[in-house]
Amino acid sequence: MNRVYNFYAGPAVLPQEVMKKAQSEFIDWHGSGMSVMEMSHRSKDFDSIIKGAESKLRKIMNIPDNYKVLFLQGGARTQFGMIPLNILPDDKSADYLITGNWAKHAYKEVLKIGKKANIVCSSEDSSFNHIPDRDSWELDPNAAYIHYTSNNTVYGTQFRELPEFENKNVVCDMSSDILSRPVDISKFGIIYAGAQKNAGPSGVTIVIIREDLLNIEATKNLPTMSIYKDIAAKDSMLNTPPCFSIYMVGLVLAWVESIGGLEEMEKRNKKKASLIYNAIDNSNGFFKGFSNKKDRSLMNVTFKLPNEELDSSFIKEAEKRGLIGIKGYRTLGGIRASIYNAHPIEGIHKLVELMEEFKNKN
Amino acid sequence: MNRVYNFYAGPAVLPQEVMKKAQSEFIDWHGSGMSVMEMSHRSKDFDSIIKGAESKLRKIMNIPDNYKVLFLQGGARTQFGMIPLNILPDDKSADYLITGNWAKHAYKEVLKIGKKANIVCSSEDSSFNHIPDRDSWELDPNAAYIHYTSNNTVYGTQFRELPEFENKNVVCDMSSDILSRPVDISKFGIIYAGAQKNAGPSGVTIVIIREDLLNIEATKNLPTMSIYKDIAAKDSMLNTPPCFSIYMVGLVLAWVESIGGLEEMEKRNKKKASLIYNAIDNSNGFFKGFSNKKDRSLMNVTFKLPNEELDSSFIKEAEKRGLIGIKGYRTLGGIRASIYNAHPIEGIHKLVELMEEFKNKN
Repeated sequence: MNRVYNFYAGPAVLPQEVMKKAQSEFIDWHGSGMSVMEMSHRSKDFDSIIKGAESKLRKIMNIPDNYKVLFLQGGARTQFGMIPLNILPDDKSADYLITGNWAKHAYKEVLKIGKKANIVCSSEDSSFNHIPDRDSWELDPNAAYIHYTSNNTVYGTQFRELPEFENKNVVCDMSSDILSRPVDISKFGIIYAGAQKNAGPSGVTIVIIREDLLNIEATKNLPTMSIYKDIAAKDSMLNTPPCFSIYMVGLVLAWVESIGGLEEMEKRNKKKASLIYNAIDNSNGFFKGFSNKKDRSLMNVTFKLPNEELDSSFIKEAEKRGLIGIKGYRTLGGIRASIYNAHPIEGIHKLVELMEEFKNKN
Repeated sequence: MNRVYNFYAGPAVLPQEVMKKAQSEFIDWHGSGMSVMEMSHRSKDFDSIIKGAESKLRKIMNIPDNYKVLFLQGGARTQFGMIPLNILPDDKSADYLITGNWAKHAYKEVLKIGKKANIVCSSEDSSFNHIPDRDSWELDPNAAYIHYTSNNTVYGTQFRELPEFENKNVVCDMSSDILSRPVDISKFGIIYAGAQKNAGPSGVTIVIIREDLLNIEATKNLPTMSIYKDIAAKDSMLNTPPCFSIYMVGLVLAWVESIGGLEEMEKRNKKKASLIYNAIDNSNGFFKGFSNKKDRSLMNVTFKLPNEELDSSFIKEAEKRGLIGIKGYRTLGGIRASIYNAHPIEGIHKLVELMEEFKNKN
């Protein structure tokens, strides 16, 4: 088999060890005579799978006991609505930091459902190429919560230090950098993430929610499947969960643990990203990074070549070498190399090698 | 490997051919060098997968052009809310046929979100062991739509002939018998089904919706992910869909096609079910079926033995022989053999054999 180096922004590469294990037990899980896909979600076997995934997540992320872990469906975008529906009363407003495309979508969803939100800061005027300086932020002291997106997948910026707030209810969309570094969960009210970048395949969304936030009931007449409290009361099993995706998350978590947990993961991520950023910075301007240096993402490295023709031929040459998915987001162009946890360092070396050769040739 | 006969009510057995194919291309799909799980949902490869699944479904179910096919998340239970939110105006009421546990949940969800619903008929007083006679139904001539559940997974009843209505907007939860027989789609407004019984693994919900129903906008301020129109406009790709589950549905559909489509499937299902029902009927009362004969489900066969001890020892003996998952639903007890499309006839023969032996021994 001709394994490629997969730089897709998500769904993205998964650890090879995980894929091989899942393949080997695909038809017969642990001698049960059936696939994880074929098991009743009420069976003891599946119970051990979902509980195992939760306890691994709790251990790896050091999640305090007063937080619930939920495995939901619908992606982060479903959370954009569920969060204000559950915890934003109509007479209050929520604070949103607009540092990228998805952060903006999250903000707009609050208005769409008829609730109030305040823009704390925005870097949209400069194509989200940076995170606005802290002293420019306009926080509402009465905000029901503060929402931000820890990593901007499209433009390649990241809160390299997570901001601290006096407001206890900090809500963070960590879809594209969950599990990439240690995080102090106790500083958050809700952390959520679609799994398909760092935690598993698409189809499952991880929500970590402090228990007191389950009781706000900010909106009347919500459908059952939109109520955190009801889902938490049934341990994410109000109805059939996305069983196989949860199983895959469990395998990915076991892999994270096996390599040494989040400290080691952060080290690896810093090393991988610095190899590409160094190639950009040492190219005498041939490669130009999109994002401000201090806000550079360790997950999505974005840059462009001197012109669009060179962008295109670079992408083609990369594909020839088995480096797949480096085309920039459609609104931004250029190159985007998404190098999540599972992206192997060999892929980075290949990309840097190509960058050197391409620069010298052109 | 010691393959078992899987009688789970869902998630349930999948066709062995499908499982083997999925396993063989699990790490390297069609020479792409990556898994379906690792592909960008915007890639050409995944586009061919989701479009392929849709076109197979359209062909097999003979879906008219004025219907949209959506692949959603959240299970049928999410649809319980989305349907009235999208197509039930506040000044109207919807008609619900209460023929089982899930039908009742669907009805209650309408009230929960603050809208109006009318009970057309209910068999709850007799534990949902039958479908009330047509002449007892109290239909509201002004109902915005009529909702029913084609197969009752828990109690094992089924609309063996699908009812016809003058109301054009017939909404049907086909979670547990979709793809089990030919259906005239043009008689419906919406058909929906969680995939995990007859169509694939859990984590994806199929919704077939007539296009005029996309424009009702019955509720203001809905979150984006709850609006059929918005999802349909983006061909189920408003955000990252449950890619691998959709891929699996595509494989299951190819299998349905390969065995001869829905006519052949219905034949097989009738044959399989009749073997067990005959064993019940010819047992001189040793086995007692739960449901009225005329409403017997072809998907979930429920019965009990003379007492609970015998139920338990029957279940144990079945497990010894590799017949898994025949314990009845927790509120009903007894035996439930779920024999969806993919359950092989060999499993039925084994079960009938056990029934004979067990009856003779006791």
